[in-house]
Parts: sequence; C-alpha cells; structure tokens
Amino acid sequence: MKVIRSIDNMKQTVRDYQNEKKQIGFVPTMGFLHAGHLQLMKEAKKENDVVVASIFVNPLQFGPNEDFEKYPRDEQKDSLLAENVGVDVLFIPTADEMYPNPMLIQMALKERVDVLCGRSRPGHFDGVLTVVTKLFHIIHPDKAYFGLKDAQQVAVIDALIRDLNFPIELVGLPTIREVDGLAKSSRNVNLTEQERKEATWIYQGLQTGQQLIRNGEQNPTKIINGVTKTLEQKVSGKIDYVELLSYPSLEPVTSINQQVILATAVYFKQARLIDNLLLDENGKIITRYN
Amino acid sequence: MKVIRSIDNMKQTVRDYQNEKKQIGFVPTMGFLHAGHLQLMKEAKKENDVVVASIFVNPLQFGPNEDFEKYPRDEQKDSLLAENVGVDVLFIPTADEMYPNPMLIQMALKERVDVLCGRSRPGHFDGVLTVVTKLFHIIHPDKAYFGLKDAQQVAVIDALIRDLNFPIELVGLPTIREVDGLAKSSRNVNLTEQERKEATWIYQGLQTGQQLIRNGEQNPTKIINGVTKTLEQKVSGKIDYVELLSYPSLEPVTSINQQVILATAVYFKQARLIDNLLLDENGKIITRYN
Repeated sequence: MKVIRSIDNMKQTVRDYQNEKKQIGFVPTMGFLHAGHLQLMKEAKKENDVVVASIFVNPLQFGPNEDFEKYPRDEQKDSLLAENVGVDVLFIPTADEMYPNPMLIQMALKERVDVLCGRSRPGHFDGVLTVVTKLFHIIHPDKAYFGLKDAQQVAVIDALIRDLNFPIELVGLPTIREVDGLAKSSRNVNLTEQERKEATWIYQGLQTGQQLIRNGEQNPTKIINGVTKTLEQKVSGKIDYVELLSYPSLEPVTSINQQVILATAVYFKQARLIDNLLLDENGKIITRYN
Repeated sequence: MKVIRSIDNMKQTVRDYQNEKKQIGFVPTMGFLHAGHLQLMKEAKKENDVVVASIFVNPLQFGPNEDFEKYPRDEQKDSLLAENVGVDVLFIPTADEMYPNPMLIQMALKERVDVLCGRSRPGHFDGVLTVVTKLFHIIHPDKAYFGLKDAQQVAVIDALIRDLNFPIELVGLPTIREVDGLAKSSRNVNLTEQERKEATWIYQGLQTGQQLIRNGEQNPTKIINGVTKTLEQKVSGKIDYVELLSYPSLEPVTSINQQVILATAVYFKQARLIDNLLLDENGKIITRYN
C-alpha cells in the first residue's frame, strides 16, 4: 500500500491508474478506522480495480466549539488496518496541503441541511461539500463509498453529485454495529464507561420506532415520541433530535408511504453520537443506497 | 463534427476519448460565435488532440432585468463556424438538460466578485461558477480556454480551479478586435449605428490610460480619470465603471508595480459593453494568461 501526502503526487498516481484503465473506488474518511470504514474499503475493493482511501480530519466541517482538536487520530494503526483490507493508496494530506490559502469559493446547500445534524452544526455540510469536491477532483474516482451511519451526509453528497454532474457513482453502505447494537463510531472512545452502557439504548430506541412502523403506525409524531420516550428513560445524555423524514430529500412526512430516515443524535459529555435507520415504506431496513 | 445535445451522450463520448488517451481542449461559449471564440477554438485545436466546444446561454448567470431573452442566437451559423476551425464536438444542451431540477447546491465566491461587472451583476458569477463546474464535470477537459475580454470571468475560473483542485489547465487568450478597435462581442449586434461608431472610443479610452502608465504615471486615480474623461467626451452611453485593479486578485492598487487590469463597462440602449486591458507593471499588454 502506498501512502501519499501531496496532492500533486496523488494526482499523478491517479493519472497512472487511468492510463492503465483501472477503475478507482474511493473511501474518504477522517481516520481512526473502525469496522464501518473497513466494510466500505472491502466493498470498494470488490467492485473496483484499485481502492484509494483518504484520511483527513477536515477543519472546515467543524464548528468553533466542536471536537476538531480531540477528534481521535491514530495514523499508524489506520495504515495497518487499511492495508489489511486491500487498500492500494492511502492519501493523508495535511490541512496546509488541502487549504494552502483561505478558500475563496464557497459551497452551500439550500435543502437537506436545516434538519438533523445540520440544524445543530451550522456550516458543517458546507465544509463537507467543499472537502469532498476537492477530494473528488484530486482522486477522480469511478465510485465513492460512504457509510449510511452519516445518512444526512450521503443525502448531501447525493445532491452534490447530481446537481454538479460529477461522473461518480455514489454508494452508501449500512451502519456496522457493536455486539450490543451501538453504531461503530470513531467518537465512541470518548464515552465514559457508564455512557458506553447507556449508548446501546440509542439503537434500541430507534428499533422501538421501527417496530411501530412495522406494526402499521403511520403517524410520524407517534413514532418519534416512541423513540424519544425510550431515550429519555434510558440515556443520561441530552437528546439533540429525534426526527423522521423522507430520504434522501429530508423533508417532513405525514405518513410512512416512502423511503424514510428515523434518526437521532445524543450529546454525551465528550461525544455527540448519531444513529439512524433507513427504512422502506414497510419499515424494512435499506442496506445499500445508490 | 459531432453535435451532441444530451449529457449522457457527451459523457460517453468523453469516456471514448479518454480510452483512446486523447487530450481534450474545451471552449465553453454562449454561442453567436465571433472571431474571439474562433481564436479560442483554433488555439485549443493546436494544443490538444480533440476540441469540445459548448453553446449554452446559461439562465443562471443572467439577472432578472438582464438580456437573457434577447441574447443573440444562431445555432446553424455557429455549427458551420465551429466545424471550419476544427471543433470535434459541439455540445448544445437545453436549459432543461442542464437544470432538470432546481439547483440545491449553491456556489459563490468571497472575493474577486464585488468589483467590475460583479458589482452591477449580483449573482452573475455564482451562475458562471455553477455552469462551468457542471460543464467541467461533463466534459472533463485537460485544458479550458476563455477569452480575456471577460477578464473577471477568467479570474473567477482561476479561483475555482485552484480552490477546488480541478485537474484542468486554464488558458486565457487576448481580446480580438474589429478594425477600429472595438472588442468583438456577441452583443455588438444590439448597438445602433450611432452607438457602434461611438463604441470604438471604449478601446481608445482604455488606451489613453495605458499610455499614461507607459509614460510613468503611477497614480491609479489619475489613470482612471484619464479614461473616464475620454469616455465622457466621446460616448453617449452611461459609464458603469472604470476600474484599475490587481490581476487576478482584483484588489485596489496604490501604484502600478504588478500585473493590473484596466477595465470599463458602458451601458448603451440595448447592450452593455465591456472591455479591458491586462497590463504588466510597465503597461505592456499581457497576451496569454495561465
């Protein structure tokens, strides 16, 4: 596995792959890799000739009071893990390499961002749009892989690719979970022992809502209240939101007659955790988005 | 020469060229081609294996009171002209093809836009950024050619390519002029006979300013006043601006110790004309930007 740190070097490597007519799968990450990332890399390896993964904790998508500084990092372990699942190139640029000058270009999204995480993280998705656009131009993948744990991010990238005609196929893959159901996340290491125990109820809360839908409940408010009640009873962290929206348009629904997302975010002391279920109109989990 | 109207077809044609390892030169236009456009196409032909030109009057870059409707169009003549200079593919999408749905993604520029034409055309360059990004993704050129008559547009595209790491080389080529000095423009057909005679003084006014610089004048205000005085005496149209700025950063200068642009825009009854001189610190014209 090659580790590349400069944009010029990365672009040259991509040109070489293109000259060899190799199809490129791309997995952008912020590092501190877990089974969720590795699943994306494995799937990319299956579906493409070469896999490029990136590790970049993007300052542009963190708010001033967010956890940019304490976002966990372990480049050495990440390299081993990525190499083990067959990643061909690991692109690890510095912030100076990615943003040598203050950005003049600003990217924003009109819809899909004032809900869920976008509401409590103003500017977050503008930063995501910018860095993903830059990475897409540098790596020029045929397919790009994102985890559905960040389902709003997938919806945002979906709009980016469609609106701007990127010649890239978006693939969203399902959330990988711990044995007790907690969604794998790089931020889980920032939970206390007690919080870690409670955190399993985030998934169980969402499942309560799913069960209501499977039992025929059509009223979004009742489904949301079912989830909220479970969380309030079982979790000491502050609930940021519980929302039920159409997917990927992320608009309010009046009944469950389409693909929907049931999502929540909970603030613990040192970590804000998110989780969601992407469901079809029968309440069945959707396992691949593209 | 192929004429292509669908994005899918255009993307497939580009993939074929890439498979044949052909370098693509791209000339985006709004049609009603004149010698300025043809120069870009000829140069693109010299420097690349194939040339793709586009004709698209982009509604997104016209303000509500601007001349989108009366912007001149002549597809048949354009096709002949483009074919004659060796264009391989003419891409002519409809507005519905380019914007099948309202855009969710918004692109904007923080600097370089509140001066010159950007000041009197709010949102214009946001529309340019968006359509150029879309066209770049559809056509995936190695080099893209723009006329320096729209020097602010070149500065904006320069920021776009740099900030977002587009793997594209920008080439700006000099303004082509009528025998009497008037800059070639698709909008010149909307001048009355009398306005057409006066319009030659736009270039002569700019040359007055250039001559001051060549004579050692360092004070921007004096240079601007020299140009303004000539225009006021000779042209019945309303002067929108006369400005002297650094290039491509488009910031005010206190003396002529760097590359600068001396630019003007004049409102006639049915056409707003622009012209500029791109000058080095000695007042010499710069003939290629990249």
